[in-house]
Amino acid sequence: MRVRLAVGLIGLGRLGRVYARDLSGRIPETRLVAVADPLGSLAEDVAAEFDVPRHYSDPLSLIDDAAVDAVVIVTPTHTHRELVLAAAARRKPTFCEKPPALSLGEVAAMQDAIARSGMFFQMGFMRRFDAGYAAGKREIEAGRIGTPLVFKSTSRDPFRPSLEYANPKSSGGMLIDMGIHDFDLARWFLGEVRSVSAIGATIAYPELATVGDIDNAVASLTFASGKLGVVDLSRSGIYGYDISTEILGSEGTVRIGYLRETPLMVLTKNSVAHDTVPYFMERFRDAYTTQLQNFAQNVLQQRTPPITIVDGLEALRLGVAATRAHESGVSVSVAEITG
Amino acid sequence: MRVRLAVGLIGLGRLGRVYARDLSGRIPETRLVAVADPLGSLAEDVAAEFDVPRHYSDPLSLIDDAAVDAVVIVTPTHTHRELVLAAAARRKPTFCEKPPALSLGEVAAMQDAIARSGMFFQMGFMRRFDAGYAAGKREIEAGRIGTPLVFKSTSRDPFRPSLEYANPKSSGGMLIDMGIHDFDLARWFLGEVRSVSAIGATIAYPELATVGDIDNAVASLTFASGKLGVVDLSRSGIYGYDISTEILGSEGTVRIGYLRETPLMVLTKNSVAHDTVPYFMERFRDAYTTQLQNFAQNVLQQRTPPITIVDGLEALRLGVAATRAHESGVSVSVAEITG
Amino acid sequence: MRVRLAVGLIGLGRLGRVYARDLSGRIPETRLVAVADPLGSLAEDVAAEFDVPRHYSDPLSLIDDAAVDAVVIVTPTHTHRELVLAAAARRKPTFCEKPPALSLGEVAAMQDAIARSGMFFQMGFMRRFDAGYAAGKREIEAGRIGTPLVFKSTSRDPFRPSLEYANPKSSGGMLIDMGIHDFDLARWFLGEVRSVSAIGATIAYPELATVGDIDNAVASLTFASGKLGVVDLSRSGIYGYDISTEILGSEGTVRIGYLRETPLMVLTKNSVAHDTVPYFMERFRDAYTTQLQNFAQNVLQQRTPPITIVDGLEALRLGVAATRAHESGVSVSVAEITG
Amino acid sequence: MRVRLAVGLIGLGRLGRVYARDLSGRIPETRLVAVADPLGSLAEDVAAEFDVPRHYSDPLSLIDDAAVDAVVIVTPTHTHRELVLAAAARRKPTFCEKPPALSLGEVAAMQDAIARSGMFFQMGFMRRFDAGYAAGKREIEAGRIGTPLVFKSTSRDPFRPSLEYANPKSSGGMLIDMGIHDFDLARWFLGEVRSVSAIGATIAYPELATVGDIDNAVASLTFASGKLGVVDLSRSGIYGYDISTEILGSEGTVRIGYLRETPLMVLTKNSVAHDTVPYFMERFRDAYTTQLQNFAQNVLQQRTPPITIVDGLEALRLGVAATRAHESGVSVSVAEITG
Repeated sequence: MRVRLAVGLIGLGRLGRVYARDLSGRIPETRLVAVADPLGSLAEDVAAEFDVPRHYSDPLSLIDDAAVDAVVIVTPTHTHRELVLAAAARRKPTFCEKPPALSLGEVAAMQDAIARSGMFFQMGFMRRFDAGYAAGKREIEAGRIGTPLVFKSTSRDPFRPSLEYANPKSSGGMLIDMGIHDFDLARWFLGEVRSVSAIGATIAYPELATVGDIDNAVASLTFASGKLGVVDLSRSGIYGYDISTEILGSEGTVRIGYLRETPLMVLTKNSVAHDTVPYFMERFRDAYTTQLQNFAQNVLQQRTPPITIVDGLEALRLGVAATRAHESGVSVSVAEITG
Repeated sequence: MRVRLAVGLIGLGRLGRVYARDLSGRIPETRLVAVADPLGSLAEDVAAEFDVPRHYSDPLSLIDDAAVDAVVIVTPTHTHRELVLAAAARRKPTFCEKPPALSLGEVAAMQDAIARSGMFFQMGFMRRFDAGYAAGKREIEAGRIGTPLVFKSTSRDPFRPSLEYANPKSSGGMLIDMGIHDFDLARWFLGEVRSVSAIGATIAYPELATVGDIDNAVASLTFASGKLGVVDLSRSGIYGYDISTEILGSEGTVRIGYLRETPLMVLTKNSVAHDTVPYFMERFRDAYTTQLQNFAQNVLQQRTPPITIVDGLEALRLGVAATRAHESGVSVSVAEITG
Repeated sequence: MRVRLAVGLIGLGRLGRVYARDLSGRIPETRLVAVADPLGSLAEDVAAEFDVPRHYSDPLSLIDDAAVDAVVIVTPTHTHRELVLAAAARRKPTFCEKPPALSLGEVAAMQDAIARSGMFFQMGFMRRFDAGYAAGKREIEAGRIGTPLVFKSTSRDPFRPSLEYANPKSSGGMLIDMGIHDFDLARWFLGEVRSVSAIGATIAYPELATVGDIDNAVASLTFASGKLGVVDLSRSGIYGYDISTEILGSEGTVRIGYLRETPLMVLTKNSVAHDTVPYFMERFRDAYTTQLQNFAQNVLQQRTPPITIVDGLEALRLGVAATRAHESGVSVSVAEITG
Repeated sequence: MRVRLAVGLIGLGRLGRVYARDLSGRIPETRLVAVADPLGSLAEDVAAEFDVPRHYSDPLSLIDDAAVDAVVIVTPTHTHRELVLAAAARRKPTFCEKPPALSLGEVAAMQDAIARSGMFFQMGFMRRFDAGYAAGKREIEAGRIGTPLVFKSTSRDPFRPSLEYANPKSSGGMLIDMGIHDFDLARWFLGEVRSVSAIGATIAYPELATVGDIDNAVASLTFASGKLGVVDLSRSGIYGYDISTEILGSEGTVRIGYLRETPLMVLTKNSVAHDTVPYFMERFRDAYTTQLQNFAQNVLQQRTPPITIVDGLEALRLGVAATRAHESGVSVSVAEITG
């Protein structure tokens, strides 16, 4: 019989419930042994639905549970620090969703705790596990496009978030909240960034200005190597969820992403049409599953984590740099962003 | 807690193991309580891997097992009749993979048994559950293309089967073995077929001629309504697995299918390229899962089966008609195919 | 200064006027020295518009004109024989639009006249000069798809012709009128055809039945080499003009054709859409020009014609065979079609 | 007979010869009555090839020629001012290729001369006449995407220019030489620009640094309306010539551009591939013709020019602003660029 990792899952919101299904039934390497959510009845329901033996309203109790060998954290960002510190205290292998925290200071504290305990810690950036992004990375490493020179990435949500969610005090603002994925990809594909400039505006949903957020932005990146990058973000990609990335190299280019959800074309008078991708869950469902499976395999086989707290820290730093560049109107040196 | 259907699974080959994962972990409405395979050690291994409480080398024992509320049959075609008859004797709701059998006579016997027992029986034609085919059906029913007029369908495997598999004595020959899916779709989209003509040849793999099979074929269909259809089949779609269907209507057309597996484009000197779909499991994995989920929901909610033994019978009849049309060189009236 | 061929153009309908522009201004190797049309005022107008020195209402006078070195015939099909015979009598290099004639007997007479006079004669099948078809041919000849095995071709008009045009007495019926292009391509790509079967129906425009024509059809081809082909035709491709051809080979496949006219995509809520090709002139305009240019170059450089009267004859024979196969319901041996 | 504009063409390089063909044979509204090039033998050859009655080595003599009713200038940029001033002195309707000049001061002088003489003057920006760009404009004006919010444009050459050409002293540098098209489109689609920031690097062709040019760049635009824009440019689009533009609006988005030249797909083992567009002449040939035809129609029908010297001036101003933003590393206010 296959050896399985006994996982405890903290956070049972929309993504948390998807993780519950993944950990309990779709990933051969895991067994879901406990779930926790401050809303105790939710924990109880999810436990019943997926045959999970234990459920908690207190996440710390789950971390303490001796039956739990590894922890998966998919809670609101402001709770990440406390939970990671608790897991570090018990040296339980931990997977934590992005972003690591909302301030560089908090992430530094998490980084310290992880380093001191020597625990296994894997940061969640699911795009790296998407079939398209993974294949793009392989093609580049195989030399198919020569030397990578320019990084371009676009992220568009099909509608705006709630004003409560969008509030930069909790989300960090669009350049952090949405941009962190693209900034992580920028580092993954082309290495560290030296400076960032950015423009942004509240032009699609004026009401977002009431909470201090923007809805469209462009950030330009100059890498430490001298290479160039550009990220554009939008909350108003009304046609559908659209995530696409290009790495232009000296011998070719790779383009990652797709716009079509269903294998159906409808051709009517003078028109050929297909649908689009509704939202992130449809686009990245398989990537989420693959990411958790990768976490379990890493822990079971004692491999080092492919995405560390440093990746979370540096992507956040780029988001903070872009936010300041947008606010100040001048290019920002990434090295100067320290808090 | 959700009510689940206690399913027994018979047949643990490639597709059977996928079904084991689906039934044990991916489909909320099912619980996999028993597995059976003549190769007893395989049944034991699969049971261990998916935490299935019981395993059998004798499929009839699984059908007899009181803990098994419903049966899923994914065994070689020549065993279908005996298993369906046994399940009918116990009135256990049954799902059976296509084709129902290799002769019209065998199917008639199954049909009788099902009718007499009044059992729930659902035939497997997974394409009907594919997101593209399902969406195409909805669009047509919504009137998007006016009146459907012409059915076109192409099925291509990326390589030939083994000579043993291809032997018409066991496979029925390419026009039945591959064509049955397209013939089922023809009936689903445009209704009953009046006559069939067909041409075929062994031109890609001469060795297939040694067992009496062909590797490429074209069948033309005239529907009872006077509408037209054409199906082309190939074992030599070397570029990738390619399943596509078009329904041309009086106001437009729908095209179902896709050629691209990974959301990645590679652009090199004067070329834009992407990958293709490797094989049926990659193309229809979600459709297989959805189909089994539909079966479980139908049984639990006492709905009538969307695909019956008659659908299996009639699709097989078209395959037999096409085979005879190819062999004789003349158009064959479907109504005259009775055994 | 470049040597130019002094061309006389007969027939000034829609396509004829396009040819007038091509011959007078777009093709470096030609000079348009005379135009003719039974409607004399039209000939006069076209001559004025394109600065053509001479114009005739009698085509035979144009052929007789000593200033005319070569003749381009783009008149109604039933006039082809007389004009080709007249040109043959004067041994003037001649280009004639497809189809060569409406009966095999007429074509045989033209073939005899051409052979006896030893004149240069080039048959018009513009698809062979389309960038896509030409590139497909090159790729196949370069071995990119291994051995060609199966030919598939689809032709769809975006609307039906007038009842007057559609009448099989003048058009030959859809399997000849539309199919002749696909039959020519079949021969060009895979060689001679041994037998043809066909089905057809009047299902989109019932009024076509009043003149005896059909509006949708499928023809299956078995080549002399044993390879297979299928052609499907429709007058009801309501979404746009759609011409596509595939040659499936042992190592790959080529697909020729496109559906998109303008380089514009419009993405709105849940939809990605583009336009389609309006009609044959938009799709094949460049091919028509290239074909006439090729004719002029062939004459000037004394090259043999790439498409001969035999190509016209054999494509017509396939159309006649398909028509008879459709009418009789049985497969027709091409060799038996002699008149 | 159609009234035609008697055009004199100055400049017979690569594009000039294409214009010679357009003006002499492809555009019904024009007659090419004179050509001029400092290389007199070239002028003589082109005149012979296209049956042009007069040819000059001195462009000013062509402008003086009483048979010349309108002038088309397609000479090196540094000569534009003198030629436009000469045409203005004679009030001859003039079409001049972009960019108008290499310095804002020179353009101001041209602007003055045009205004004083009251002559008809049309600036060349052929992309506005491309079927895709024109259709995109129409769709936006018809409200298909709601309010335009974000402008994105990409221009990529498939190889670098010669070092001589690239030298910013003659080309203005990449942000002007290539960017001027995208900056013109930015203004056309979203109006005036308030500020520009830019990054650039010499990362693909180090040798370009020896003449002071870059090979990749990103410019961010903030429009006067508060809307956003981004332009990225590359000399190393090695896969093919790639021009694409998107306008994201509140209700949808339009994407203009295409990557495929020939209507052919080649599918081989696990790959689907097509070709790309070789270079600007293949991509915009029809746009060039349409643009000249538009010029002739405007003059003949006394319409006002759709693209004026102000459009040339402002697009150049954005190029200069972007160049300075790149050099200084700070955002540049467009209004401050005055010389």
